[in-house]
Amino acid sequence: MKLLRVGTAGSERPALLDAEGTLRDLSGVVPDIDGPLLADDEALGRIRTAAESGELPVLDPAGLRVGAPLARIGKIVCIGLNYHDHARETGAEPPAEPVIFFKAADTVVGPYDTVLVPRGSTKTDWEVELAVVIGRTARYLDSVEEALAHVAGYAVAHDVSEREFQIERGGTWDKGKNCETFNPLGPWLVTSDEVPDPQDLSLKLWVNGDLKQDGTTAEQIFPVGEVVRYVSQFMTLYPGDVINTGTPAGVALGEPEPKPFLRAGDVVELEIEGLGRQRQELKDA
Amino acid sequence: MKLLRVGTAGSERPALLDAEGTLRDLSGVVPDIDGPLLADDEALGRIRTAAESGELPVLDPAGLRVGAPLARIGKIVCIGLNYHDHARETGAEPPAEPVIFFKAADTVVGPYDTVLVPRGSTKTDWEVELAVVIGRTARYLDSVEEALAHVAGYAVAHDVSEREFQIERGGTWDKGKNCETFNPLGPWLVTSDEVPDPQDLSLKLWVNGDLKQDGTTAEQIFPVGEVVRYVSQFMTLYPGDVINTGTPAGVALGEPEPKPFLRAGDVVELEIEGLGRQRQELKDA
Repeated sequence: MKLLRVGTAGSERPALLDAEGTLRDLSGVVPDIDGPLLADDEALGRIRTAAESGELPVLDPAGLRVGAPLARIGKIVCIGLNYHDHARETGAEPPAEPVIFFKAADTVVGPYDTVLVPRGSTKTDWEVELAVVIGRTARYLDSVEEALAHVAGYAVAHDVSEREFQIERGGTWDKGKNCETFNPLGPWLVTSDEVPDPQDLSLKLWVNGDLKQDGTTAEQIFPVGEVVRYVSQFMTLYPGDVINTGTPAGVALGEPEPKPFLRAGDVVELEIEGLGRQRQELKDA
Repeated sequence: MKLLRVGTAGSERPALLDAEGTLRDLSGVVPDIDGPLLADDEALGRIRTAAESGELPVLDPAGLRVGAPLARIGKIVCIGLNYHDHARETGAEPPAEPVIFFKAADTVVGPYDTVLVPRGSTKTDWEVELAVVIGRTARYLDSVEEALAHVAGYAVAHDVSEREFQIERGGTWDKGKNCETFNPLGPWLVTSDEVPDPQDLSLKLWVNGDLKQDGTTAEQIFPVGEVVRYVSQFMTLYPGDVINTGTPAGVALGEPEPKPFLRAGDVVELEIEGLGRQRQELKDA
């Protein structure tokens, strides 16, 4: 299923994009799309039955804002340098084990919302990423298979990054990853039954129409199941937590000088196979 | 005022410790203690009036669990190496600007709850810290004075840290800071009007009765107001966010080999002047 949330920011209602591409209202079936829903097989079954009945109210998408497809996100765990091609372009050794950093849930915005270039920023960069949404509490998982069974679904995430703040200002990467609006998410949360192989998805990102990133999750150094298993050894993952699994090659940081970092007026578009497409215009904070 | 939350985990009710040290029930006045409450001067005024009336119902503290004094915490921003004496003991240069890392809000437990030594851990360490609780949305603040006006109050935080995960496993410090139960908070949220000088508080921590940390916030490299001002340049702080402002000297990592890292059965007690005292027993995860 393709689950989403539509409406003004903070007042979104749950919705479904059905097999015919018609937007349907889910607010009569479930209150919202969040961690408790994803952990609730009965409620997910009700959505499925309602979707199959073909009787869910149709929503007119015209003029309707699309929010992030998940409410009340707990934490966003991010995996750094997780693509062979991206590690090469940044001059980094492929890590021996996953690199973990964090984004705060309050950085999440909808897939078509404005992204703000932070004040004082000269190095705002883009990163298309496969986001994994957790559906069951994951703690010291033993195997990749068990880990994949804890994944509720997938979405497109834009891990917007300020490279000076991230790398040149002391401390950890978190400093350049948590600026306001720095995590567009969506448009859809695609349930994992509709993503048979998360290691065979193409990811693309365009800036002002130019294709900048053109990768595949087959290039991930640590695949989704291993990432979830690994992270669960260090922290407990809860329903409604998100893991951004890293970005392929093609970011501004990897280009020759003068690197084409983002500025107000730029337009970024991102797409992952089967998970939909985002579009953000940059503005100054 | 000294605000707190009492009751079983997940079902705490708001309470107040009055000037005579009597525990009073606030659940008839406000629904809970969280970010929206701290941003609501009218609701805080109602608590104050009710407290002064002396008519709030008395709670019997016997057998009553104390939870963290803040519900629905947004993010926890942590400042690393923020005490001159702690930077010296770890062999680090004092940072030129604040070092930022993150703890997830789901690591927060009550001040007397069990702390779990992670599986596979041999380097679980203690850190007493002054936690700053944000009361107003803070974004690109101009001055230290303005920053302090965004602080709702203070609390004791225990920034439990796994040093191998933090330092020896690749990536950022977050990997060793986000294990389950790694952020005891409380017992009280003391409103900032009762903390006239946050740079003049003694901090102490004992392990099995031995005094290990004995510091003062006067040793902070970046004082509270500067930390809040600085962080607001990189991310937006919201009511109900918390900043752990760093730990003074005296952690296990700073001791000679064999370093006395924590094990199941150990008891840690922490105290900050005017903010109360915590006590945790360690158990294996």
